[in-house]
Amino acid sequence: MDFGDQIEILLKDGKKVKGELMPRPELLSKDVIILKLNSGYNIGIYKRKIKRIKVLKKYKKEKIKKIKIKRNPELPNISIISTGGTISSRVDYETGGVYASYTAEDFIRFEPEMLKYANINSIPLINKMSEDINPKDWKKIAKATFKEIKKGNGVIITHGTDTMHFTSAALSFMIKTDKPIVITGAQRSSDRPSSDAYMNLLCSTITATKNIPAVGICMHGTMSDDYCEFHLGTKVRKMHSSRRDAFKSIGVKPLAKVWPEGIIKINWKPKEQELKLDTKMNKKVGLIYSYPGMKIDNLDVDGLVIAGTGLGHVPSDVISKLKKLGIPIVVTTQTLHGRVNPYVYSNLRKLSSIGAIFLEDMLPEVAYVKLMFVLSHDWNVKEMMKKNLSGEITTRSIL
Amino acid sequence: MDFGDQIEILLKDGKKVKGELMPRPELLSKDVIILKLNSGYNIGIYKRKIKRIKVLKKYKKEKIKKIKIKRNPELPNISIISTGGTISSRVDYETGGVYASYTAEDFIRFEPEMLKYANINSIPLINKMSEDINPKDWKKIAKATFKEIKKGNGVIITHGTDTMHFTSAALSFMIKTDKPIVITGAQRSSDRPSSDAYMNLLCSTITATKNIPAVGICMHGTMSDDYCEFHLGTKVRKMHSSRRDAFKSIGVKPLAKVWPEGIIKINWKPKEQELKLDTKMNKKVGLIYSYPGMKIDNLDVDGLVIAGTGLGHVPSDVISKLKKLGIPIVVTTQTLHGRVNPYVYSNLRKLSSIGAIFLEDMLPEVAYVKLMFVLSHDWNVKEMMKKNLSGEITTRSIL
Repeated sequence: MDFGDQIEILLKDGKKVKGELMPRPELLSKDVIILKLNSGYNIGIYKRKIKRIKVLKKYKKEKIKKIKIKRNPELPNISIISTGGTISSRVDYETGGVYASYTAEDFIRFEPEMLKYANINSIPLINKMSEDINPKDWKKIAKATFKEIKKGNGVIITHGTDTMHFTSAALSFMIKTDKPIVITGAQRSSDRPSSDAYMNLLCSTITATKNIPAVGICMHGTMSDDYCEFHLGTKVRKMHSSRRDAFKSIGVKPLAKVWPEGIIKINWKPKEQELKLDTKMNKKVGLIYSYPGMKIDNLDVDGLVIAGTGLGHVPSDVISKLKKLGIPIVVTTQTLHGRVNPYVYSNLRKLSSIGAIFLEDMLPEVAYVKLMFVLSHDWNVKEMMKKNLSGEITTRSIL
Repeated sequence: MDFGDQIEILLKDGKKVKGELMPRPELLSKDVIILKLNSGYNIGIYKRKIKRIKVLKKYKKEKIKKIKIKRNPELPNISIISTGGTISSRVDYETGGVYASYTAEDFIRFEPEMLKYANINSIPLINKMSEDINPKDWKKIAKATFKEIKKGNGVIITHGTDTMHFTSAALSFMIKTDKPIVITGAQRSSDRPSSDAYMNLLCSTITATKNIPAVGICMHGTMSDDYCEFHLGTKVRKMHSSRRDAFKSIGVKPLAKVWPEGIIKINWKPKEQELKLDTKMNKKVGLIYSYPGMKIDNLDVDGLVIAGTGLGHVPSDVISKLKKLGIPIVVTTQTLHGRVNPYVYSNLRKLSSIGAIFLEDMLPEVAYVKLMFVLSHDWNVKEMMKKNLSGEITTRSIL
């Protein structure tokens, strides 16, 4: 019995479990074997509870075939910039765990149907899981993306899902675009038949050929393989740790609904912008979610984002400590939905009176990226933070 | 024209706006007047854009009438413990802003229909907006609640909504109960006709008379006045800054759906527990949401909760810094929905190997309160954090 084999386990209590035999993480007891169920979840089973194991199908390492890609001069050109993540990952049956290995070229092999919609050019750029994508990587991705956009190519960026919405926010501020910049990924690794990678890639290709001038995230819209959604890059957040439809637009409709059969329904479009690249970022910014009993100590930052409770609250005793920091402080809400409002309660007015900038309905993570961007320029911080640059803020209008 | 008056503004462009004249916060330009719309939102209007203002109805300060409450020996007894918050608040037309003033006694006057279901006893305990409710207050509330429960009384706690879910988690760990402990509040202050206070109080009363042994939050289930939901205290979070239906159960069904007409549909019930009070809390715990570029510096805490990205990630370079802290570290997910899993990716296994405790589907804010509770006892931290004490964790079973 080898890792990767499809097996059926008969338990002593008569239950049967089917799945794929997985390597056992080092920390787990040796009395346990790990099975990946068809649902994509792993379970552990105590060996002592097992009556019999049947191998249903031996694991065969797929060979990567070289395929020849013919250019179709009638179709638009799309560049896939790969940065790593689960979409690039395969299970390592030697060591257990998952590692990033596939590049954009492999994606075409996986999902040749993309070639129906565009000529695909592949650019392997970074190979990291997304928790390690950092502000320096954002710059690298922005530069590579801008180069393709300037050539007139559409762009798909494959990326780990965990921090995908941070990267989409960063690119939204760094690049002014006249066409879609589509970020996509997968919640299940590409070497699994149950992977969402294929449909996400296909829907991203369809989206990238359309006239939507925005940085956005294109991922599954439901738990099934029905359709994808294309979310504005500054109004989207990963809202589930494992589901395919983890990404949700917050406070706005998704830009579009995209079916893998090639149909797209565009809900709304941002304004077209003249191409521009600006990758400056101040990396000394902090992001804090407030909570009862919180302490503000020696923060070594040039700016601070607070995800306050409700309309933008922090405990009263924190306000004077924030004032002492003497740095720009911006306020968002940890409810994620809704907006902050400095006018309703006296504590909020206190917070506002020490100069804290209330950012309406801007998401905390987007405010973090934007504050890095704004502080790196010689701009009026308050004015720029409250100004809508890339759909990140929808101001309640003063009539 | 006085603050509180219902007015109609005719703008120069022909538009009409109706609402209540509000005091202008000090920070706002003197050229602006503030109107509270019927939706509950405030807007500002530049004076120069106004053509005409009509006063529709003068503001009259209501006089608080003393009412006599007759005890009905056939009905159960419920104690309303008031702690402040918007439900206790009224707009102060002298200074602007909102302040807490009403106590439990006033609630009965507001919503005498509660008396159909129970005899109401009022206990004014604390008078704070919820951003200032701290772990010491949790103890005070737990003790007062326990006293009533022991007498055989049902309990309703009125509370500000911002940190209501922190308090509900704290009470869930501090009190083992055989009957419902219902926490409620309001998103709009009680002196507004549009306040959600009345229906929340009524539904809470109905809930408090039922046989549901749980600490929970009872608030509007929709934006209209249809019904309320009763959420388990460890599986609920404020998910909108201003809507009436801001509270949502995360990952589980609400315990019950409650109609103000007196009907209740119980979805599920936790196990009944023998009465017990334990108010110990270690106040030196931190809560951090992870993000790209985050720094871990000198944290002066006895324990740390991380709301990681996705399945529980932090940037790789943070892992060694966390190890150096030498304190219990627990991991939850900032996606809020879904669970963490230390086995899938190698970085997660690294984090797990430095002793970080992965808390399945426990909410970050609940993990914070629970770690305070667990660290204050002479317990095995890992064992207790991973053990389900009050419905906060639903373990994926090892067969």
